[in-house]
Amino acid sequence: MLFALDAMGGDFAPEAPCRGAILACNENPDLTVALIGIRDQIEPHLEKAPSDVRKRISIVEASEVIGMGDNPAASIRGKKNSSLRIAMEMVRSQEAVGCISAGNTGAIVAGGVLVVGRIKGIDRPGLAVPIPALERTSLLLDVGATVRCKAINLYQFARMGSIYMRALSGIEKPTVGLFANGSEDIKGDEDIKGAREMLTESDLNFHGLVEGKDVPLGRTDVVVCDGFTGNALIKFGEGIGVVVQTIIKEELEGRIIPKIGVALMMPSLKKIWARFEHEKNGGSPLLGVDGLVIKAHGNSKENAIAGALHVARNFAQLKGTDLIRASLD
Amino acid sequence: MLFALDAMGGDFAPEAPCRGAILACNENPDLTVALIGIRDQIEPHLEKAPSDVRKRISIVEASEVIGMGDNPAASIRGKKNSSLRIAMEMVRSQEAVGCISAGNTGAIVAGGVLVVGRIKGIDRPGLAVPIPALERTSLLLDVGATVRCKAINLYQFARMGSIYMRALSGIEKPTVGLFANGSEDIKGDEDIKGAREMLTESDLNFHGLVEGKDVPLGRTDVVVCDGFTGNALIKFGEGIGVVVQTIIKEELEGRIIPKIGVALMMPSLKKIWARFEHEKNGGSPLLGVDGLVIKAHGNSKENAIAGALHVARNFAQLKGTDLIRASLD
Repeated sequence: MLFALDAMGGDFAPEAPCRGAILACNENPDLTVALIGIRDQIEPHLEKAPSDVRKRISIVEASEVIGMGDNPAASIRGKKNSSLRIAMEMVRSQEAVGCISAGNTGAIVAGGVLVVGRIKGIDRPGLAVPIPALERTSLLLDVGATVRCKAINLYQFARMGSIYMRALSGIEKPTVGLFANGSEDIKGDEDIKGAREMLTESDLNFHGLVEGKDVPLGRTDVVVCDGFTGNALIKFGEGIGVVVQTIIKEELEGRIIPKIGVALMMPSLKKIWARFEHEKNGGSPLLGVDGLVIKAHGNSKENAIAGALHVARNFAQLKGTDLIRASLD
Repeated sequence: MLFALDAMGGDFAPEAPCRGAILACNENPDLTVALIGIRDQIEPHLEKAPSDVRKRISIVEASEVIGMGDNPAASIRGKKNSSLRIAMEMVRSQEAVGCISAGNTGAIVAGGVLVVGRIKGIDRPGLAVPIPALERTSLLLDVGATVRCKAINLYQFARMGSIYMRALSGIEKPTVGLFANGSEDIKGDEDIKGAREMLTESDLNFHGLVEGKDVPLGRTDVVVCDGFTGNALIKFGEGIGVVVQTIIKEELEGRIIPKIGVALMMPSLKKIWARFEHEKNGGSPLLGVDGLVIKAHGNSKENAIAGALHVARNFAQLKGTDLIRASLD
């Protein structure tokens, strides 16, 4: 299985994509990766790759780069030789099984829609992220592909999220929560109310409205929200993680007894921390496009890129795109 | 200073409001409280109050109660003898300096607008909550009064938040961040873009767009968002708190060494936890109404109600409503 990896996208490109590709190929003997980008910048990072891994990594030259601040649709349309656009085209032509990028989210979404194309019956794509919640791992979507959503978009996210979650977890009928500003039926705006009606009448396992605290608690298998809200929640959670780490560090500074305490707790702390570590789930599939497109976090280091390649490989093996397409026929 | 306290609002009413009133009056010799509600249900909870405190607590009979699931505007209009409506009317008539309720948020907002009335020049009110962030305490608004906002609403929240934050903190020109799905200028929907333009041209100390992680980090003194987003963030943060406590407890279950670790860390842990304890800031002023209205958390126990009374007293002493009114003239 060949995956097209945007070597120029993300805060630590091209080093992180190159090293991530080596890491993932090392772990999966069936994986082959095409690094798309500026050859001279990629090659130095591949020098230390073991020869059996190096054989499975190719380089596809791309002379342009889409930056984090570039206008999404304009750059995808205009920069025809950009690493991201070429990666997308390899998916469209089925040269690659899927593509992965840690670059400009808007451009990835625009590329998914404009280059790869939407699945018939889907109006807008949604980025889906697994959340390590208390009661279960929930799938949250959309986390940033479609900023504002109509009822139909939320309904389609619920449908796609259910299919993907069933494939991921084996749960026959995943429960679906629709995110709102409270769990009582009267909550939400007109679009949420509209989606709630559609979901109530659908064959999905609709749980009803869920609110902010239900997401970390893990009330449902799938949580559906607009991209603005999903993005806000994910980033807010990341910020809380940084704050907790910083405060603990400051608090322990120069104090012996609490430090001994931390040392004694370390195995437990590591276990707790592992639950929130997102590196293992380093990639979010862009559900609703007619091909496999994975968005990795902008600040992905090599482990997260390797994680995104694992997510891509898993999605391909599950035939995620085919499942969504089939369910809409 | 007499404050009207809705004795029937919140998950632990009437006990929590009654005990909260006793607690707050005990701490503040200048405080007098009118408990609004069903007399027979209130009196038993006042029996143990010290006599000098009991003298400062009166009961105002209200025969109706607005429930958590009641339609906000309809219940405020229809239930004329409800504890919440009577509390609001005491503010309008200036019989009370302000009112406090832990009841139905929508009904508190509707009552603020319909009974107390808006300040001239303000289209929609906003609930403001102090967030114990890393770099500073930030004021987040709106956390649920105005679910969806136009540019003008966000702009007015920024103005009111700045005034209140200056009064609270003494910072002459509080920095204002406008919440969006990213901090780059191109982020946000049309309303956020419109508000961004208005804020850029205003005399406020506008920092620009902020995103999810900036809120716990505390990038700005004031953070402005619509009520849907603010509600989502606050509740998501609460949920994470519950999850962390639960996981730590489960992880320590039956294990001696990590428990010793926790014991050694306890003074530090308590200090960390105190930063996030919202009981001290148990109330959010409803900014933009022409009188003092404080919304307490629905699950407020006595400490949180006492906290809300402190917030109310502080707001009255700062003359918060007058400051906002004056700035709009």
